Amino acid sequence: MGRMVAMSEGREPGGGVVVGVDVGGTKVAAAAVDGVEISARVEHPTDLSNQDELLAGVETAVREVAAAVGEPAAVGIGLPSQIDFATGTVVASANIPLEGVPVRAELSGRLGCPVYVDNDANCAALAESHLAEGGRVEHLVMLTLGTGVGGGVVIGGEIFRGATGLGAELGHSVIQEDGPECPGRCPNRGCLEALCSGTALERTASEFASANPRSALGGVLAQEGRVSGREVVERARDGDADALRLLHELGRHLGVGIAGLINTFEPEVLVIGGGLSRAGDLFMAEAEGEARARALPALSERVTISLARAGADAGVIGAGGLARHELARAV
Amino acid sequence: MGRMVAMSEGREPGGGVVVGVDVGGTKVAAAAVDGVEISARVEHPTDLSNQDELLAGVETAVREVAAAVGEPAAVGIGLPSQIDFATGTVVASANIPLEGVPVRAELSGRLGCPVYVDNDANCAALAESHLAEGGRVEHLVMLTLGTGVGGGVVIGGEIFRGATGLGAELGHSVIQEDGPECPGRCPNRGCLEALCSGTALERTASEFASANPRSALGGVLAQEGRVSGREVVERARDGDADALRLLHELGRHLGVGIAGLINTFEPEVLVIGGGLSRAGDLFMAEAEGEARARALPALSERVTISLARAGADAGVIGAGGLARHELARAV
Repeated sequence: MGRMVAMSEGREPGGGVVVGVDVGGTKVAAAAVDGVEISARVEHPTDLSNQDELLAGVETAVREVAAAVGEPAAVGIGLPSQIDFATGTVVASANIPLEGVPVRAELSGRLGCPVYVDNDANCAALAESHLAEGGRVEHLVMLTLGTGVGGGVVIGGEIFRGATGLGAELGHSVIQEDGPECPGRCPNRGCLEALCSGTALERTASEFASANPRSALGGVLAQEGRVSGREVVERARDGDADALRLLHELGRHLGVGIAGLINTFEPEVLVIGGGLSRAGDLFMAEAEGEARARALPALSERVTISLARAGADAGVIGAGGLARHELARAV
Repeated sequence: MGRMVAMSEGREPGGGVVVGVDVGGTKVAAAAVDGVEISARVEHPTDLSNQDELLAGVETAVREVAAAVGEPAAVGIGLPSQIDFATGTVVASANIPLEGVPVRAELSGRLGCPVYVDNDANCAALAESHLAEGGRVEHLVMLTLGTGVGGGVVIGGEIFRGATGLGAELGHSVIQEDGPECPGRCPNRGCLEALCSGTALERTASEFASANPRSALGGVLAQEGRVSGREVVERARDGDADALRLLHELGRHLGVGIAGLINTFEPEVLVIGGGLSRAGDLFMAEAEGEARARALPALSERVTISLARAGADAGVIGAGGLARHELARAV
């Protein structure tokens, strides 16, 4: 209950239900959010055919939640995109067709209530800051390891966004200046996304499999034409030493990046989330070891490094928390 | 005048003179600070023999300024150290004997007015945010290139410090994970300080000179037993291609780091200062080229990259600005 109270502090000035929406590349999830608790959750496949269908899908999801809990006082939306926060306009977006769309204006018009739009990793970081072990923290950095590497930063209890909302792109800091090209829409090389993402794991595993056709991973490549990150994780769990070594290497790269983030932000908590973090037991010891060996001692002593705790609903919870926070600020 | 007005906004609520003090490894400078203007400036060699002498030197400098302009309403002090900001206690300090000393309590007792203590690079960044081309900016990142590499970050017009004041150690983010050991009191390798500091320049120049004894830099090594960064800069200015190439390499490393800082903080302005920045004409084109080739395009478009403008008094101006800001907040 302590956590709910903490996150509900802003409730009185901006009362009423808030709805959080998490728009991903495959599904749209929405729910009423009260502190770190959610209710009336709905989920639909993301309609990626065009922006109208996608926005209509978000509207429908919010209306379904509203039918169960009443009209929302505000809606928060997390998108896998770079957002100009003040206007809620999508500046850049790799995986959903909303580039250039003023999502905030568009949906607040349709829904008849204030709408706040932010990057999904920012929302997840806000959720994690409310769910930290031992209670809410004010200073948190989160990396989300999935197809790419996303980042979210909470400073003084608030989402940090940079000058216009495009900051906290933590996945695109370099740790290996002559390293592999970033697989995302980033012109960089040797950045965290190029070395610690699911895509990076697939690349290193496929390279290893090509060079070692008689290995178990080589067999996977021969059979399936690729070695997915998921396959590497499964093989590592089954005891394959090569697969485990690849995950350990990923962990060490991650630790180099974590050390820089600790020195840069001095967070109380540094959280690793995203789909790949479900295999964290296979690489987090290496990541934390590397990070603590490299970070400035006075800062390393003060930080907790942990896996994300909010689970699959982090995006929804964080988007709801964002809406609650902005609503309270506006009153 | 626009700049002075901007920086004097906090003046009415916390009126009176403020004094800024910049404590360096070689000298202590102090002055009355009004916006970005200073007056009654004094300067003394830093007494490094022990903490009592050093604190007495700071006290003397402030009293000398006060004798000219009247008793200060507050004093701001920038130190080349990691500071716990709330208590003004030095957590770690490589070059001055103040580790563990509660400088804020100690000097506010002696001086009879509020004292605020911060990292010197943080103070310099605050000064630069008030002096940006085109007027004050709210979001700024500064790297100071000297013996080491320091960092300061201004977010929303305020110094960013992390959870307790130890953050913004931007010189210790890695860009080359298997790179050279950091020459500072940092357990890392391949961090910016290991590749872009004056110490790093001396290391690469000495390595080159050893391997190429018949080069001009080889001659310097034979004659002087080392190749200082200053010597590399002078030789480059005299047209030595090897010296210039070493500075270009330093610039490219710096650009890799700058790209990460742009992606992380989305600043309006990114400033390079410190003693080595006086040779910026020899490496900033390479640094900016590399940074813009690597940063996310939407963020690169929005940022100005420039050399520091506050000059040698950035630390004094920033420390005074800090005192003004904290005084206004306390009222």
